[in-house]
Amino acid sequence: MNRKQKHSERSVPTLEDVARHADVSTATVSRCLNSPDRVIEKTRKRVLAAVRELGYSPNFGARALAAKRTNTIGAIIPTMENAIFARGIQAFQEELHRLGFTLLVSSSSYRPDLEDEQIRALVARGADALLLIGHHRDPEIYRFLEDRGVPVLVAWAYQKGAAVASIGFDNRRAMAELAEKVMDLGHRKLGIISAGQALNDRARDRVRGVMEVAAKRGLDPQAIALVETPYSIENGGHAFRQLMEQEEPPTVVICGNDVLAVGAMQMARQMGLRVPQDVSITGFDDIELAAVVAPSLTTVHVPHRDMGRQAAQILVDMVLGKPLAQSVLLETDLRLRETLGPPKG
Amino acid sequence: MNRKQKHSERSVPTLEDVARHADVSTATVSRCLNSPDRVIEKTRKRVLAAVRELGYSPNFGARALAAKRTNTIGAIIPTMENAIFARGIQAFQEELHRLGFTLLVSSSSYRPDLEDEQIRALVARGADALLLIGHHRDPEIYRFLEDRGVPVLVAWAYQKGAAVASIGFDNRRAMAELAEKVMDLGHRKLGIISAGQALNDRARDRVRGVMEVAAKRGLDPQAIALVETPYSIENGGHAFRQLMEQEEPPTVVICGNDVLAVGAMQMARQMGLRVPQDVSITGFDDIELAAVVAPSLTTVHVPHRDMGRQAAQILVDMVLGKPLAQSVLLETDLRLRETLGPPKG
Repeated sequence: MNRKQKHSERSVPTLEDVARHADVSTATVSRCLNSPDRVIEKTRKRVLAAVRELGYSPNFGARALAAKRTNTIGAIIPTMENAIFARGIQAFQEELHRLGFTLLVSSSSYRPDLEDEQIRALVARGADALLLIGHHRDPEIYRFLEDRGVPVLVAWAYQKGAAVASIGFDNRRAMAELAEKVMDLGHRKLGIISAGQALNDRARDRVRGVMEVAAKRGLDPQAIALVETPYSIENGGHAFRQLMEQEEPPTVVICGNDVLAVGAMQMARQMGLRVPQDVSITGFDDIELAAVVAPSLTTVHVPHRDMGRQAAQILVDMVLGKPLAQSVLLETDLRLRETLGPPKG
Repeated sequence: MNRKQKHSERSVPTLEDVARHADVSTATVSRCLNSPDRVIEKTRKRVLAAVRELGYSPNFGARALAAKRTNTIGAIIPTMENAIFARGIQAFQEELHRLGFTLLVSSSSYRPDLEDEQIRALVARGADALLLIGHHRDPEIYRFLEDRGVPVLVAWAYQKGAAVASIGFDNRRAMAELAEKVMDLGHRKLGIISAGQALNDRARDRVRGVMEVAAKRGLDPQAIALVETPYSIENGGHAFRQLMEQEEPPTVVICGNDVLAVGAMQMARQMGLRVPQDVSITGFDDIELAAVVAPSLTTVHVPHRDMGRQAAQILVDMVLGKPLAQSVLLETDLRLRETLGPPKG
């Protein structure tokens, strides 16, 4: 038995071994290696002697393996623009910080191939766990994460019975609630502006919410005009113009999120249409923008901060190996503001 | 000489050694280790045989050390909220992706201690280089990064002759240009809403820009009312109310950024003040919000996308060891929109 093995069952000495040998905490050993200037000289010397004696290799990988945890959580959000995810992620980060974890964020530009690449990069960089947005992705990715023992939590979308834990809201039900309100006001000519549905389960569920209410009320869902376009103010404007230039323009344009809705509002102004007198416009998310624009935007309020905070707690519990929590369904609610009114005439 | 050393001068076998031994590219070796399912079985077997034979240890740290680069760039921005940095960082990420690098972002909530922690976390996670915002930080941090050979680029603030390379604009000159315009219109009672200046060089330079123009025009800079508050729509509103409830309220409120300005506009509406007839309001940044609010916001346009794109190119050049580029000064320009008019009366 060589010297190292006296301190550990493993042949590679760990941070804990160094700490025990130098009679300090593992935090002190970490500090000596990462920020030696923060440790008094006497302690530093003792720790470095232990490092040498045990042959502990303070390279990044060895450190991560030794401590097992890196106290780093990764999150991949579809975009950093337009503040769609900003408030939730900021709350997520604040709570992680409170719990002693650092957050690293990547943005996939709504591209599955980029998300895949970023998941692998975050795992290679030692992320203890990942937060991902929405359920739609190659099952192979979940296998990849499971093989490596990296817990994952899906946010921004609750799915009952999904194999992967999730925290979020029911996009379909939330949008259906708004659609009920719209149709209660008498609207029968509906237009929808949505992000592409094929790869985005949140977008798809929101459209379904509208369609199901329309069908229930005797409208032909096929007769509802729908434009798909990536989320941006500019795209929202173009899509709105497209809908309004139809032979029978809609009396209400239901937008998949607030960013599209704000673009639609801007275009309405440019086209000389009054909102809501000439046409109603609704959003989804209730980002800060929604209350700031004039007229203020009727939308679905998503509890972003609450979601971010709870997501942090769940993920940290996962990292610490606590029993897995149930998926969490959060409630959304309608914010009836100025852009929704009865149809014209 | 043992078998390993036949393949390398170093005693630890590298990714390159494995690639040479298996007669494949290093990318193929990486792929075998990270995503074995993406490599045909024959190649995979050959690579794994080489891994075993050479005793190559495909753990994360060893991998990072072997390849020397991780193709990961870290960025620490002060906040993810309000889309202040969103557009620039999105462009930064898109360009990095084009160049084959992955971006990991952290947000420091404008707190130097958190930034410090995140810098260390990103370095520990193997970031090849870092993008930091603004110049104000403990010089010790630059030493820490230099010791570890991690290149750093400061963005959002150009500083001539600074020891650290930077890309950005001259915050002072940009704000001075706006102040000239404001005073040309006849304003003599100025109010300023700024982020805390003590730890934020961008905020400080913007205030200086206003003060210097005011002094040049014969105003007593001490007589200019100034409120410091963290960037948020809500805080902008409170600060605006504070300024307008003074005995001699300003005829123009110059805000340190668009987020504060939008808050000021909202509060003006609540207080029954017309903008710009009763009071003018200006911003800084020209985030998407600025053109969307009504009335549209007069502000300083910052070339966020251009800055992000160029920052990516400079940092990647640094990582690749190309000769260091000069710091880059970008031009800003005024966007004279609806919220700035002549003073009342």
